[in-house]
Amino acid sequence: MKDKTKAPLIASTEIDIHFYDIDAVQMVWHGNYVKYLENGREAFGSKFGFEYMYIYDNGYIVPIVDLHVRYLHAIRFGEQIIVETQYIPCDSAKLMFNYRILRKSDRTVAVEASTIQLFMTKDGVFETSTPEFYRKWKKKWINSSI
Amino acid sequence: MKDKTKAPLIASTEIDIHFYDIDAVQMVWHGNYVKYLENGREAFGSKFGFEYMYIYDNGYIVPIVDLHVRYLHAIRFGEQIIVETQYIPCDSAKLMFNYRILRKSDRTVAVEASTIQLFMTKDGVFETSTPEFYRKWKKKWINSSI
Amino acid sequence: MKDKTKAPLIASTEIDIHFYDIDAVQMVWHGNYVKYLENGREAFGSKFGFEYMYIYDNGYIVPIVDLHVRYLHAIRFGEQIIVETQYIPCDSAKLMFNYRILRKSDRTVAVEASTIQLFMTKDGVFETSTPEFYRKWKKKWINSSI
Amino acid sequence: MKDKTKAPLIASTEIDIHFYDIDAVQMVWHGNYVKYLENGREAFGSKFGFEYMYIYDNGYIVPIVDLHVRYLHAIRFGEQIIVETQYIPCDSAKLMFNYRILRKSDRTVAVEASTIQLFMTKDGVFETSTPEFYRKWKKKWINSSI
Repeated sequence: MKDKTKAPLIASTEIDIHFYDIDAVQMVWHGNYVKYLENGREAFGSKFGFEYMYIYDNGYIVPIVDLHVRYLHAIRFGEQIIVETQYIPCDSAKLMFNYRILRKSDRTVAVEASTIQLFMTKDGVFETSTPEFYRKWKKKWINSSI
Repeated sequence: MKDKTKAPLIASTEIDIHFYDIDAVQMVWHGNYVKYLENGREAFGSKFGFEYMYIYDNGYIVPIVDLHVRYLHAIRFGEQIIVETQYIPCDSAKLMFNYRILRKSDRTVAVEASTIQLFMTKDGVFETSTPEFYRKWKKKWINSSI
Repeated sequence: MKDKTKAPLIASTEIDIHFYDIDAVQMVWHGNYVKYLENGREAFGSKFGFEYMYIYDNGYIVPIVDLHVRYLHAIRFGEQIIVETQYIPCDSAKLMFNYRILRKSDRTVAVEASTIQLFMTKDGVFETSTPEFYRKWKKKWINSSI
Repeated sequence: MKDKTKAPLIASTEIDIHFYDIDAVQMVWHGNYVKYLENGREAFGSKFGFEYMYIYDNGYIVPIVDLHVRYLHAIRFGEQIIVETQYIPCDSAKLMFNYRILRKSDRTVAVEASTIQLFMTKDGVFETSTPEFYRKWKKKWINSSI
């Protein structure tokens, strides 16, 4: 039997850089990468059945509580980027992702990033134990029983 | 008795232009002015007791259905602008505003604009007759009985 | 011989709506459509050899001087839109485009819009006569001799 | 003699939260805080004579190479925030800032953040030694000789 726990869950999505993404020094404005990371999470959700609306329909939103971005290489107008979003398994009631953003033409790494999200009920309370629907999702995709 | 109908209702607000507002050709990106117009409407709401939340608490949202912007003069990094927002009275169930955006330093007119908003219930239905709370507001501020 | 003057020049591009495009009343924030219109012009430029950088390399930028947007139907999270950008021929030194933004799933028209751009030299002077490179482009694509 | 090295350099600026800052779950969208940090750096530059244009006129841009944001408390429509930006002295050719973003009404800490910037020449080369103009600025403000 294949051990799912060893296969990292990664989704990849491509984004065109537009004029409005570029700042006064002719590079993508650094804050725009936060949008691209969100694109990456959406692509992950689509690929692995963990969309924002699926989470919401199960009673939760998943606000970002930690964001770390390292900028390695500037991206410019007219270029295309690839956002790779990798799910990082952990035992607590969190969503952790690592990201790489690559320039498509030559796969130069432009950005490395990570985010942590918590589960919050619609009443605004942070969930401290793993929600049941998330436990099932983990069981299915990473063979986790926690 | 003072005839309120003749005094235009105008609110004015100042905005600093930041690095992230500037585009690749060193001007404020044209789409950002839509934000400044929203700032202008918020300033109008504060001054004349017609805030977004007041409208919402009365059961409505007021989506923009028409936006017209004429760009007359570019604004640059580090400049300050003044947004003047004028209420345009009309008899139907609409909110109409005209705007002027001026460079603060010399009052050069950078942008002229106008918007039209309709009243929509929270169920997503456009209201065709003037909502009662808006009728009262108009009575108070522009001496209108319609 | 085919009469190029009768075939409208239209480019079409698809855009995914992301979480960050959505406002507090669960619709695409109205100002974001200005980005989508820019996407439309970029798609037009790619299809018909009139990219921003081509214009720039010929000595010009083409700032928006007039923007008109009519909002007909709200777009929501997770939907896809199609931006159709049509070149409107005119005899003066202008770029005029009309746009339709459609919800992809059922082709409901969400937005109709138009923009006017002028040719500005890199020194910031508006060009009153048609630049030579634009004249050639018009000759090629719309069989215009003006 | 007052020991400048012990007095932290901190600038503070206030920001109104607008409708367009709010996301579909009624909070400030997490990516917008990157703008507020930029506001904070601009306020710091104004207060301590280290504006973006001053840096630029001395031959450099200072791109962000590292961004870390911790989100502690959500901010909502109509609230005001205070961004406190503190310069963190270091001996290498870097700019390091720590930030606190507070809700103005009750000084709840909404966000803690830090950024690192490097000095890049206009030719796109990172400077490894401290630029002379920055050395002078440090001498003046933090009594540093490095």
